[in-house]
Amino acid sequence: MYDSAGLEVLSREECFHLLEKVPVGRIVFTVLAMPAIQPVNFMMHDQSIVVRTAAHSRLARAARDAVVAFEVDEFENHDLNVGWSVVVVGTAREIRDTDELDELRQLPLRPWAPGVHDHYLRIDIEMISGRRVVSTATRLGAEDLTAS
Amino acid sequence: MYDSAGLEVLSREECFHLLEKVPVGRIVFTVLAMPAIQPVNFMMHDQSIVVRTAAHSRLARAARDAVVAFEVDEFENHDLNVGWSVVVVGTAREIRDTDELDELRQLPLRPWAPGVHDHYLRIDIEMISGRRVVSTATRLGAEDLTAS
Repeated sequence: MYDSAGLEVLSREECFHLLEKVPVGRIVFTVLAMPAIQPVNFMMHDQSIVVRTAAHSRLARAARDAVVAFEVDEFENHDLNVGWSVVVVGTAREIRDTDELDELRQLPLRPWAPGVHDHYLRIDIEMISGRRVVSTATRLGAEDLTAS
Repeated sequence: MYDSAGLEVLSREECFHLLEKVPVGRIVFTVLAMPAIQPVNFMMHDQSIVVRTAAHSRLARAARDAVVAFEVDEFENHDLNVGWSVVVVGTAREIRDTDELDELRQLPLRPWAPGVHDHYLRIDIEMISGRRVVSTATRLGAEDLTAS
């Protein structure tokens, strides 16, 4: 299935599969009414996104109980415009429950930045969508356009 | 120079250099008061970011005269946590001036998605910042930590 822009619409299952595949995503939040975005290492856990950060980071302060977007993508070949992107929207919450924290600390999740990151955010997925761009050649039926 | 999170702070010149280096970025905007993010091909032109899109796309409608963020990044080695990210904040405006459009149409700028994309957005850079993560080994003075 393709959307009106000609992009392949990914199923919910494909979106979850792709979220499991990459270790770095980008969290989109708001700071002082301005759009902000930051790359983070993350892991999927119980069908939600878990991010580890420093307790007093800009991200930890701004994303607490806020609706955020989270994006992962991969572009295999810039020249051919082949790639995919998955976007999640959900509420980020700080994890305070001791049992839950103990469980998350077992995950092989390292923060992107160095330093102490004893703070965990969970983004519960409320909306998920994904798109894939396939090369013109693939869309036209795998004709070899490389010579043109 | 390192920030409080231990990330190397990039100079304005480095940020511009990195923006020139990659063909795909992510534009962050708002749709129905919800955070939205979309990958786009882009080019630098007159120290601003130029994006090509379809006239009636969600992006074209939402980003017109809006303050948006724009992010580019590159993670060379996920395992070692080596990578960089540059974030711009600025106002996106639709380009309507005929001379300007003629000039931009000469750029080798292809949209990410297929289809007709005769609409150009320019993001004038109001704020630009960048961070680089260097591996622990590099920060500690290039000791070989791979065996640890």
